[in-house]
Amino acid sequence: MEFSEWYSEILEKAGIYDLRYPIKGCGVYLPYGFKIRRYSFEILRKLLDDTNHDETLFPMLIPENLLAKEGEHIKGFEDEVYWVTHGGKSPLEIKLALRPTSETTMYYMMKQWIKVHTDLPMKLYQVVNTFRYETKHTRPLIRLREIMSFKEAHTAHSTQDDCNKQIKEAIEIYGKFFDEICIPVIISKRPEWDKFPGADYTMAFDTIFPDGKTMQIGTVHNLGQNFAKTFELEFETPDGNKDYAYQTCYGISDRAIASLIAIHGDEKGLVIPIDVAPIQIVLIPLLFKGKEEIVIEKIKELSKILKTKYRVHVDDRDIRPGRKYNDWEIKGVPLRIEIGPRDIEEGKAVIVRRDNGQKMTVEAFNILNEVEKTFEDYKASLLQKATEKLEKYITVIENDKKDLLLLSEKVKFALSESKGIILVPYIESIYNEEFEGLIDASVLGLTTYNGKEYISIARTY
Amino acid sequence: MEFSEWYSEILEKAGIYDLRYPIKGCGVYLPYGFKIRRYSFEILRKLLDDTNHDETLFPMLIPENLLAKEGEHIKGFEDEVYWVTHGGKSPLEIKLALRPTSETTMYYMMKQWIKVHTDLPMKLYQVVNTFRYETKHTRPLIRLREIMSFKEAHTAHSTQDDCNKQIKEAIEIYGKFFDEICIPVIISKRPEWDKFPGADYTMAFDTIFPDGKTMQIGTVHNLGQNFAKTFELEFETPDGNKDYAYQTCYGISDRAIASLIAIHGDEKGLVIPIDVAPIQIVLIPLLFKGKEEIVIEKIKELSKILKTKYRVHVDDRDIRPGRKYNDWEIKGVPLRIEIGPRDIEEGKAVIVRRDNGQKMTVEAFNILNEVEKTFEDYKASLLQKATEKLEKYITVIENDKKDLLLLSEKVKFALSESKGIILVPYIESIYNEEFEGLIDASVLGLTTYNGKEYISIARTY
Repeated sequence: MEFSEWYSEILEKAGIYDLRYPIKGCGVYLPYGFKIRRYSFEILRKLLDDTNHDETLFPMLIPENLLAKEGEHIKGFEDEVYWVTHGGKSPLEIKLALRPTSETTMYYMMKQWIKVHTDLPMKLYQVVNTFRYETKHTRPLIRLREIMSFKEAHTAHSTQDDCNKQIKEAIEIYGKFFDEICIPVIISKRPEWDKFPGADYTMAFDTIFPDGKTMQIGTVHNLGQNFAKTFELEFETPDGNKDYAYQTCYGISDRAIASLIAIHGDEKGLVIPIDVAPIQIVLIPLLFKGKEEIVIEKIKELSKILKTKYRVHVDDRDIRPGRKYNDWEIKGVPLRIEIGPRDIEEGKAVIVRRDNGQKMTVEAFNILNEVEKTFEDYKASLLQKATEKLEKYITVIENDKKDLLLLSEKVKFALSESKGIILVPYIESIYNEEFEGLIDASVLGLTTYNGKEYISIARTY
Repeated sequence: MEFSEWYSEILEKAGIYDLRYPIKGCGVYLPYGFKIRRYSFEILRKLLDDTNHDETLFPMLIPENLLAKEGEHIKGFEDEVYWVTHGGKSPLEIKLALRPTSETTMYYMMKQWIKVHTDLPMKLYQVVNTFRYETKHTRPLIRLREIMSFKEAHTAHSTQDDCNKQIKEAIEIYGKFFDEICIPVIISKRPEWDKFPGADYTMAFDTIFPDGKTMQIGTVHNLGQNFAKTFELEFETPDGNKDYAYQTCYGISDRAIASLIAIHGDEKGLVIPIDVAPIQIVLIPLLFKGKEEIVIEKIKELSKILKTKYRVHVDDRDIRPGRKYNDWEIKGVPLRIEIGPRDIEEGKAVIVRRDNGQKMTVEAFNILNEVEKTFEDYKASLLQKATEKLEKYITVIENDKKDLLLLSEKVKFALSESKGIILVPYIESIYNEEFEGLIDASVLGLTTYNGKEYISIARTY
């Protein structure tokens, strides 16, 4: 089955996201999908809270003149902004944009709050919906008109040095986050012509989807003083002078959810990383006539023990166990525990891992330890497996001769043969949009890989 | 100080909400305010999750023809809907509304999901932003154009009886929620002319603000089969027939946050209920020259113990203790603990309650128990104090004579004398909009008070 078909199907079958809404690119997070989103963003929230970011909530509407204040920025967004023009039946005096992102909103307010260097650093974030009038083909959780979950962080600092350190911290936080959801990433410095509109430079996190195309799943922007000058974020320095704030911003969206679905899933359905699984363990009683009660009792007992540490569900539906296995495999529940009368006699329980199908008989009394051990291994091996898949999609092209046309042919050939990311050792003469035009693919940017600097190239989502 | 002035000032001074945004009725939840919101809605989420409600996320935009599908409903909202008419520079083929509420969105999707009685009950909720183009005077967290936090639940059932039971459950859940944030409420059945557009009837939760005006802080609507018929939510009954789903919906917004600020606060600042306090305990070292270290050590030790159960902050700023007390009183931190060298010698700690200023010297080794005991009492007495304030604002008018004009004069007099809620024993002849016109106030509806049925009347926000 083609990946894109598999992806659409699993969103529906596992109850993640329903796109049958009468606006293209707008859909519904279903209960099971919403829980994955909730646990994922909770991890991100915790990482941000632990590094002294403050959660906030800013307005969704942006007056036209505010959005247009930063020239480069508005140029980057104006073709895809939704405009509110009427309230009730009356035309509004000034058009209001649905936020495509919140730089202008937040920096307008920061101007009210930042007066002196002791007001800095200021590290804010919010998790909100944002909007893009996408004219391209939309895809659920990947390219949406309503991005339902956008975690955007915005910081302001009193020195360039602090600002640079913040970029490092942001990259570290995102690295940890993607580790938690077992998604391997390639970090690149985006080329000038593809950086965030208004930024000094952009660092981006890409991963590779099963179809070999890359997906940008996180970005970190060094804004320097560009926005600060436009929004007059001037403050008094320790020595009594004036300076403009140095700023960064960084974001992660629903694409993180799309990635963990796409990258870990298999032909049976989802495979969910432990920490974001709505149900971490499903208990399935194997009932035999006359011995139902003892099994049900045992299941209750184990469930109670396991619930002290995990999200547990007991599937006591009156259907065949095989159908139950199937249902929970589709939903990607990390661990299934089966208990029948013989297991109870022997003091055993059978545990089955979703990621590799491994079936183990363990001592029932020791169930908590067994699960803990299994989950540790599950998590590590999920990331490892995903990393191996990603590595297979990376092709390094040696580039001794500097014949551009030949090189572009080599890149195109490699892309069509191997897909994924093609790495070409950095040479200045090819690092431009003209070369990008030749290869019919995207230049992701400058990427350090195994200690060496490359230009990274891929077909992207 | 007038209440409205106090309210505006405290939002700013305590760091709750900043309204200096260039769109009327749109503002920013500041970090401290956001945390109160977060903990408050977490309580609500837990109550809903525990009663088998599923959290979801539906689109924010509603096509005009979808919003207009239910005739009564759109009539109730059309004057205050924001309309998106353009994407980029292109006019949209069909106008899109910013959701004023999500009945139409959700029921359109429920139609896809509900086929047979076993698909029911369906109990969904979401916490989202909603929009009203308010032409009235806006007030922070009370009357907003962007309602930043709207918890809306929507349920569908296979029988009228289940639907009625759901109304009871919803009222119970909301009752528990308001108890948790120590807000006393009066529950009324809204009059026909003030029910939710499209509902069979509306039950509403009102509280009374310090200025004697009532504030609607929660509503529960029995929709019967009205929307179900419009949205064709038809399902197969157990006996193979067809029926339309029976529906309810209920909502709570930022007004819950406004209430807990308004009702518990005093001349010194906020008084926050324990469970939603961003900081539950602030520790303040009393430093004397030469004895700093021992105090700092003790504070660290206590903080570590207290953090196992509470949200704790150590204020080690280099300013006078008096200023610290003042700052944390403004922010409404429930408990302050002061430790000086003499306290340490004596094995004591001084704890000071924010709600009543009570100062107690307790055994330091027993600090966790002391705090727990104090918090129990704090919570009970916060609700009790608020309830007493509310009761003082309730005036029962005896109504033996049925002279409408005389009665309306009595009501008007009582309102101007006592403010708050005026209760008039129910008689059919006055329960109409004409009478409401006479009294220059709002009929809240039918209210059971001390076991008797009244018509409740008030000046409302």
